[in-house]
Amino acid sequence: MKVGFIGLGNMGSGMAGNLLEAGHEVAVYNRTPDKAKPLVEKGARKAASVADACKGDVVITMLTDDAAVENVVFGDAGIGNNLAKGVIHVSSSTISVALADKLTAEHAKRGQRFVSAPVFGRPEAAASAKLFIVAAGEEAAVKACMPLFEALGQKTFRFGDKPSSANLVKISGNFMIASTIEILSEAMALVAKGGLDQHQYLDFLTSTLFAAPIYKTYGTLIADKKFKPAGFAAPLGLKDTRLALAAGEALRVPLPLANLVRDRFLRLLARGDETIDWSAISILAAEDAGLGE
Amino acid sequence: MKVGFIGLGNMGSGMAGNLLEAGHEVAVYNRTPDKAKPLVEKGARKAASVADACKGDVVITMLTDDAAVENVVFGDAGIGNNLAKGVIHVSSSTISVALADKLTAEHAKRGQRFVSAPVFGRPEAAASAKLFIVAAGEEAAVKACMPLFEALGQKTFRFGDKPSSANLVKISGNFMIASTIEILSEAMALVAKGGLDQHQYLDFLTSTLFAAPIYKTYGTLIADKKFKPAGFAAPLGLKDTRLALAAGEALRVPLPLANLVRDRFLRLLARGDETIDWSAISILAAEDAGLGE
Amino acid sequence: MKVGFIGLGNMGSGMAGNLLEAGHEVAVYNRTPDKAKPLVEKGARKAASVADACKGDVVITMLTDDAAVENVVFGDAGIGNNLAKGVIHVSSSTISVALADKLTAEHAKRGQRFVSAPVFGRPEAAASAKLFIVAAGEEAAVKACMPLFEALGQKTFRFGDKPSSANLVKISGNFMIASTIEILSEAMALVAKGGLDQHQYLDFLTSTLFAAPIYKTYGTLIADKKFKPAGFAAPLGLKDTRLALAAGEALRVPLPLANLVRDRFLRLLARGDETIDWSAISILAAEDAGLGE
Amino acid sequence: MKVGFIGLGNMGSGMAGNLLEAGHEVAVYNRTPDKAKPLVEKGARKAASVADACKGDVVITMLTDDAAVENVVFGDAGIGNNLAKGVIHVSSSTISVALADKLTAEHAKRGQRFVSAPVFGRPEAAASAKLFIVAAGEEAAVKACMPLFEALGQKTFRFGDKPSSANLVKISGNFMIASTIEILSEAMALVAKGGLDQHQYLDFLTSTLFAAPIYKTYGTLIADKKFKPAGFAAPLGLKDTRLALAAGEALRVPLPLANLVRDRFLRLLARGDETIDWSAISILAAEDAGLGE
Repeated sequence: MKVGFIGLGNMGSGMAGNLLEAGHEVAVYNRTPDKAKPLVEKGARKAASVADACKGDVVITMLTDDAAVENVVFGDAGIGNNLAKGVIHVSSSTISVALADKLTAEHAKRGQRFVSAPVFGRPEAAASAKLFIVAAGEEAAVKACMPLFEALGQKTFRFGDKPSSANLVKISGNFMIASTIEILSEAMALVAKGGLDQHQYLDFLTSTLFAAPIYKTYGTLIADKKFKPAGFAAPLGLKDTRLALAAGEALRVPLPLANLVRDRFLRLLARGDETIDWSAISILAAEDAGLGE
Repeated sequence: MKVGFIGLGNMGSGMAGNLLEAGHEVAVYNRTPDKAKPLVEKGARKAASVADACKGDVVITMLTDDAAVENVVFGDAGIGNNLAKGVIHVSSSTISVALADKLTAEHAKRGQRFVSAPVFGRPEAAASAKLFIVAAGEEAAVKACMPLFEALGQKTFRFGDKPSSANLVKISGNFMIASTIEILSEAMALVAKGGLDQHQYLDFLTSTLFAAPIYKTYGTLIADKKFKPAGFAAPLGLKDTRLALAAGEALRVPLPLANLVRDRFLRLLARGDETIDWSAISILAAEDAGLGE
Repeated sequence: MKVGFIGLGNMGSGMAGNLLEAGHEVAVYNRTPDKAKPLVEKGARKAASVADACKGDVVITMLTDDAAVENVVFGDAGIGNNLAKGVIHVSSSTISVALADKLTAEHAKRGQRFVSAPVFGRPEAAASAKLFIVAAGEEAAVKACMPLFEALGQKTFRFGDKPSSANLVKISGNFMIASTIEILSEAMALVAKGGLDQHQYLDFLTSTLFAAPIYKTYGTLIADKKFKPAGFAAPLGLKDTRLALAAGEALRVPLPLANLVRDRFLRLLARGDETIDWSAISILAAEDAGLGE
Repeated sequence: MKVGFIGLGNMGSGMAGNLLEAGHEVAVYNRTPDKAKPLVEKGARKAASVADACKGDVVITMLTDDAAVENVVFGDAGIGNNLAKGVIHVSSSTISVALADKLTAEHAKRGQRFVSAPVFGRPEAAASAKLFIVAAGEEAAVKACMPLFEALGQKTFRFGDKPSSANLVKISGNFMIASTIEILSEAMALVAKGGLDQHQYLDFLTSTLFAAPIYKTYGTLIADKKFKPAGFAAPLGLKDTRLALAAGEALRVPLPLANLVRDRFLRLLARGDETIDWSAISILAAEDAGLGE
């Protein structure tokens, strides 16, 4: 397929690379253009502008947040004004439910098609095409994108016709991960204060009831206190928690755990380091317990 | 081995049955004696008293709470006064760290040996010898008990010489499970209010990042709203959360998640039904979201 | 003075009336124009438009929320485009710190002056000129407005030159009130479940340590379960709590109490009644305790 | 009246002194006997033992916690075994509802009378007879004690015949104070991070909506960061919060604010300083906001 790919950060670079590898024709665009270089070396075409990236069958956006997506879509030289009728915009960024609903309405108004397809997985998973993809939107549009999703991830899950449903799944999933980090933080602070070895405890957890990769991944980061370089930086964790709370507020769903996690991120970020991994909120439960360095 | 087994509830009956099956000689005792019948039919000896259950190489207690254990151990006709020197008391009940420390000291004073060996698993796991056993205590004593642990569970984890370490692991583990129920409750209320199907959402979770049995087990109970009969009743959930908070208080470790879960149990139990499964706290997050029946 | 007054809701009507009573020349404007009638009968001039209300020495806005203020100020026919250089815009609405900062910058750009002067007090206090006024902005501008503030309230407190400081004080004050409602709710649920009479308990509190009007006002509403008509409706309580959380997020200040109160409002509003007083969150603590009607 | 007074700490010494001043005949007892000296100089008789303090019309206990009271009452040489029939035990300590109920039953069994009369006020108030007294118990017994209460405090409030009702009022009152400290801590951290002066903010609060002494007292301690010497030490704050939570648990009343405050105390005390005032939990909200020293 002919694809435009906008947003070449940690995640987007790996994703665009996998599209190339699968044989798709990819035009790449990034605000800071030097990020395009390694992909061009692999055969991508460097798009000169957002509009230039809109010339294929599909344009994929993988950007930091709502503001970035609004900018790229609704700006004068944006996707909204440059995508031909019937062409599909696939949004893989983690954005708000509200913005997904707005994108749905605005693309429909212009005769363009819109699919929400946020992804689960850290940059390593993006690079190795091991992402999980959550897709929602008009059935034919999602089907048309399946060859792309197959190149990007290990499995795609469909969640109906309303694009923002995929965003709700993504947001709730990230909320679950952040909350799991908090659970591990508290449990590991408790046993450490009680004199146990955190690694041994984690081995026990992950070979019994908590045998999911998430516990191994985050539990090890916590026990090792290895928070740099960030796989997923704390400000992004704060952003995603805010998205969960905003979705909950719009739907009138209290989420006390999200509040707790949000406060952890605020407290962590009040220290001024924005480059730390989001699992570093674990140092707060440890500190509260009087566990020194 | 020659074993006494005290406490024939949901868990204890299955455990004692597996000891028999493995060829051990088992004397069983329960306060309400009719619970002994099925085990006697399988070859157990019915002990006439706690003292009578203390005549083997090991006596195992599997009781409801601290009060029950204190009663059985420190009562005039209790284990403390009836266990011969060098004989091992294995406590598999979920009891407080403080009581485990007291048992350690009191048995030592009497020349008896003490091993804490709480277990993870619901009654089905107890019946099918699929428990995970967490054991702590003097190395020789734990080793002596290994044939029993092998009959009871699928794997035994050792946590050092201090018996109460095993209880801390057990308590923190149950805290993690209760917190995970809360995470699922909130996430599933959010997506349900947003119009998604909870079973489909759960399928997604458990086939991606949250592929541990705990999510399937509890997520299904929540989505099905099937809280009876209880695999683990809410009052026990409250009790175990209280144990985590007590351990945290003694060690000066704040556990905000345990507070949240504790309040869920209190609110659930304020309604008067003590026979409901602990996963029923999930109805509270749903109610708060205005999700009616 | 010659004053324009925009926003004639529960609060604004009383305030505009007091300006008239004090002898000021007042042009009143409201989106739904019939609200102007009683004031016109007292001598106000009915402004035909926002622009028409901008012809005096000062224009005061007393509107529901950020969106309403942005609309009235930044719309094409808004205050921004219609206020002469040097004329003062006094914002008495409860708005975000971020919007107050934006108003400061935008008015400055146009050579207009801006004072933030949010008020404390329920509609009765607005009607009887008993408000407390919190004012911040350039000293000369605040001084110029003092005759108006004296007509509106019982006392004015200055908080420096930066207008948004007044909004931060207002927002934090409302957060304190909402939190105090929560404290009373929990304490009164506890003693009621213990068999005590809530009114007697409240008499005790308010004649000893908690002898501030806020406890008498809200405690009585709670004990009487009298939540209609609303003095301050629950959706406004939610809005103000959100403002506190937004201020906290921008400044990186966790506010766990604000989270708790926010969840109370969401849960209350999930039931669908938006006309109930914000003190009705007290029914939630009572419900959680199993205290029926 | 002829009174025994047991427990001569910060509070008890002042109270016993005021009984003397009012002309009552007072026998004083303290575990560490040198505390009795200043009172003996004022005319008190030094009791040689608990039993020796039980020889009057009334014996008052003012002790640290449940354990101390249980010890003094139920020990072999305790009040229970030494108080004549019909004589009144007045418990002014802050103890649990459960212990008050036990004291009621045990004294009744022995034909002794029991009145719960906990007090509100810091040591200065105890010394100057400005305490508020909350009394509950059989009407005739409370009436008989009125001359004593009048000597001890500025006002006495009766809460019915069940002694533990007074303890519930005391416990809930202390919970309200601790929660108010938390409110002030969060609000003052927010405005300080926003650049405002905490003293000016406090002046505003206490001259408007929050004009109760409690705000002035604790707000000033917080703004001045003056936490030593402790008027009421943090471990006592933790203890009283635990009593509120225990009362709530027994009655099945969730108290989310009490959880929050409990965690503050645990975190503060995890640092190892047990002599700091309970208002020092305010440094935690400030720290979380990144407000350094």
